[in-house]
Amino acid sequence: MITGKNYIGNQLSASGNKTFKTFNPLLNIENQWEITEASKDEVDQASELAAEAFKTYSKISGAKKAEFLRAIADEIEALGDDLLQVYSAESGLPNGRAMGERGRTLGQLRAFASHVENGNWVDASIDTAQPDRKPLPKVDLRKMNVPLGPVVVFGASNFPFAFSTAGGDTAAALAAGCPVIVKSHPMHAATGEMVSGAVVNAAKKTGMPNGVFSNLNSSGIEVGQQLVKHPKVKAVGFTGSIRGGRALYDLAAKREEPIPVFAEMGSINPVVILPEALKNRAETIAKTYSASITLGTGQFCTNPGLIIGLKSEGLTNFVNTLAKEIVKVEPSCMLHPNIAGAYESNKKKALSQNGLKVLASYTGEVETNYARQVVTTVEGDTFLNNPTLHHEVFGPFSIVVQCESEQQLESIISNLEGQLTGTVISDDNEIASYSNIVSALQNRVGRIIFNGVPTGVEVCPSMLHGGPYPASTDSRFTAVGVDSIKRFVRPFSFQDWPNNLLPDELKNENPLGISRLVNNKKTNQKI
Amino acid sequence: MITGKNYIGNQLSASGNKTFKTFNPLLNIENQWEITEASKDEVDQASELAAEAFKTYSKISGAKKAEFLRAIADEIEALGDDLLQVYSAESGLPNGRAMGERGRTLGQLRAFASHVENGNWVDASIDTAQPDRKPLPKVDLRKMNVPLGPVVVFGASNFPFAFSTAGGDTAAALAAGCPVIVKSHPMHAATGEMVSGAVVNAAKKTGMPNGVFSNLNSSGIEVGQQLVKHPKVKAVGFTGSIRGGRALYDLAAKREEPIPVFAEMGSINPVVILPEALKNRAETIAKTYSASITLGTGQFCTNPGLIIGLKSEGLTNFVNTLAKEIVKVEPSCMLHPNIAGAYESNKKKALSQNGLKVLASYTGEVETNYARQVVTTVEGDTFLNNPTLHHEVFGPFSIVVQCESEQQLESIISNLEGQLTGTVISDDNEIASYSNIVSALQNRVGRIIFNGVPTGVEVCPSMLHGGPYPASTDSRFTAVGVDSIKRFVRPFSFQDWPNNLLPDELKNENPLGISRLVNNKKTNQKI
Repeated sequence: MITGKNYIGNQLSASGNKTFKTFNPLLNIENQWEITEASKDEVDQASELAAEAFKTYSKISGAKKAEFLRAIADEIEALGDDLLQVYSAESGLPNGRAMGERGRTLGQLRAFASHVENGNWVDASIDTAQPDRKPLPKVDLRKMNVPLGPVVVFGASNFPFAFSTAGGDTAAALAAGCPVIVKSHPMHAATGEMVSGAVVNAAKKTGMPNGVFSNLNSSGIEVGQQLVKHPKVKAVGFTGSIRGGRALYDLAAKREEPIPVFAEMGSINPVVILPEALKNRAETIAKTYSASITLGTGQFCTNPGLIIGLKSEGLTNFVNTLAKEIVKVEPSCMLHPNIAGAYESNKKKALSQNGLKVLASYTGEVETNYARQVVTTVEGDTFLNNPTLHHEVFGPFSIVVQCESEQQLESIISNLEGQLTGTVISDDNEIASYSNIVSALQNRVGRIIFNGVPTGVEVCPSMLHGGPYPASTDSRFTAVGVDSIKRFVRPFSFQDWPNNLLPDELKNENPLGISRLVNNKKTNQKI
Repeated sequence: MITGKNYIGNQLSASGNKTFKTFNPLLNIENQWEITEASKDEVDQASELAAEAFKTYSKISGAKKAEFLRAIADEIEALGDDLLQVYSAESGLPNGRAMGERGRTLGQLRAFASHVENGNWVDASIDTAQPDRKPLPKVDLRKMNVPLGPVVVFGASNFPFAFSTAGGDTAAALAAGCPVIVKSHPMHAATGEMVSGAVVNAAKKTGMPNGVFSNLNSSGIEVGQQLVKHPKVKAVGFTGSIRGGRALYDLAAKREEPIPVFAEMGSINPVVILPEALKNRAETIAKTYSASITLGTGQFCTNPGLIIGLKSEGLTNFVNTLAKEIVKVEPSCMLHPNIAGAYESNKKKALSQNGLKVLASYTGEVETNYARQVVTTVEGDTFLNNPTLHHEVFGPFSIVVQCESEQQLESIISNLEGQLTGTVISDDNEIASYSNIVSALQNRVGRIIFNGVPTGVEVCPSMLHGGPYPASTDSRFTAVGVDSIKRFVRPFSFQDWPNNLLPDELKNENPLGISRLVNNKKTNQKI
């Protein structure tokens, strides 16, 4: 069933001669499947085919796109337990997580289907002509969102379903009307091939043009670079490291025709605990955060890597309880030996910084590729003056910064890089007295949370998953939720265009019955 | 009244020692005013002050921002004829154009005031909590657009009012809640100072924070480069040449924290004339285009630099009439000797290309800095294979491409760089038979026009002024119309945030009475 080949549109293809294998971190052995890396020719073929498919796919109706997206979800579901087993074999993630993430992925595909089905999402806007206007007549102008062109999606290591082959970026791009070329993540290439097969089946069954979807394997960086540089590619979605995302961003910016790169990258997700909260419930908060820090072996992009408080008895209680609680958590397996190795070396680098003290560290025996969680603490000024401590350690690692003053706390937050999330833990009325700190935090993040944990990213219209650089390369867009479709469209204007040749969304008759801005008033009436 | 100084917030400042003068192209003499270039210190001061102003300005109400924008319009209007005279002295543009452009500028400022006054524009979205949801409770999430931070605006040479100091980019950024630092265009620095004075007066009168607006002079590129590299600057608006816009884009992309650059650059605005239209009304079309090519001395970014048709008797008629008509137009003055000089050398370069033939050229005597219009013609394959002919010659210059076949015509369009506009001249039903050509054109432009001319950019919600690179650096946004505000905002999410601390746009009570997406349904009700 798993061939190790690439999908160039609907065709399996393996013209290259470089192969690699994925790895089972739980068993600490290579998986059986031999994966063939895409050749330069195959990259070109997939790109050209996508550009050809764009000519028709960019114009099909929302209803047809919805049918395609729902068929993808159905086909993935039909793969059943076989798919879940391959997922676990390539990630070390347990069956429960596999089921949960599959559910989320199917939910995303179906949510995008509903979103584009009726056409409201194109932001249709119509200004009718005024031929008698003085001094100059007014022309008829009609505007709506149209797709950008072929999109390259880079699968994420930590979400083999939800942010990979048929994950959020792919669903958003296909919903927008853009063909997708997936650069499959090398850590779960077999999972990727199975999901790709489901997408290809769905494309065939619903009559989509060949090339609307391709899936290319690679273990190195060449295939990705070739894709980002290819003139037919018009946008890139990426989830991963700052180094990787920035490299793609730089490559895209240097093209003769620069293209947008939406990279969701690193974040340490600062958590500020205010004094009254520390005084009244330091232990409860510590227990909650012990769980959040270690959730999914700390491999979520919203993992709380930085906790900040003002020195006090409460903070001491918090720190002591966190130290006690964190070592009770049973260590778990990381996604891949390389990720476990990176965790060890990044942790070591952080721990070698002057002034960073270990609060508690799991010291028991663990299996290979398992991560031992660590919580640390540091003085406010030490943290402020050492940018190395501001960098993410991907895994179950967190720093508690103990501040001397509100001013220092505000200064620490203002000097952080951009973050996906910021959290404030506060007693009910306390937060109102800290508006400077809250403002500073808002200015550095994409989502701000009151009395919660940053882990857990709800898929809904009001979610913003992204944030100022380097949380993402473009803070103006979300990577989660239906609004992520906006990354892959551009507005387009028709001037005095014949009614019968306009897209349905802009015709006088309003055949789709959608809500439109007509002469600056929202209406679903015809003209 | 004109001091030649910079505005650092509300203060006039001239600590630098480099000065320059603007030029009156009609009289062919330097203007009297001595303009002092901003120093590196002044760039830093303006940037720091803007960042400080952002802390309060980002949070003031839509009503207050509307008051400020309307006050700017009123203050500009109050400058009366004095301003129009300085405008004409620095651009050579006639009084009628000055009045028209001022009207457009005031209209833009007031349109943005209305747009942000009520708060609908923030795209408020609310998903309420579901504490009992299984398997996991759902948190409360609320999302709206918030401003990016200080914005640098580069004034345009060809619109001293409408795309300069208080033009479209500035109005959009201020409306969004972003402080603005204008890098004043060196060709109309005195006009810029007068308009800046109006903005500063309006800011004082309406109680805006000092630093919400600054205006910096420079005759070279250093001030602009320093601004784009400054860490406190978060976005850039630019209107001008591809070379200039790309240089700023590259600079911004290389920053440690890359920032968006919205550059509206060059375009040759292809016009396709279909066979029946040529057969039935070649002469009329030629007369219309003779006027469009020479409008404003060809100095509009939507100037039709490329006209394409299939070889036929009709095309020959068109070409002959265009040749006859174009020489009847009285030449006019360009904006500056440098622009007149660039027109001459770009024209010369184009005319030296193999196969490009002059159809007609104004050969009479003209005043210094006046532009002699030229129309040329070339065979389809010659044009297709010579990218030099695809480049804009800024001024009253146009190429008529005579194609052998529909395939060749489609191929020419598909191989064009991105364009602001594309036009199809067609008899009523003819266009339906050319869907391939129309599709190819749509894919290359931001706005498509039926039976009109590209010159004339209506300011209304359905206008898209922008297009695929290099028409603009980001085809996903318009530079004209109220939607241009979207360039300077990012969506932001509040999770479980206390109702009394939310912005008014997201509070349960909906105190602004705006339309919001609540649990996926549009409503202006409270929660």
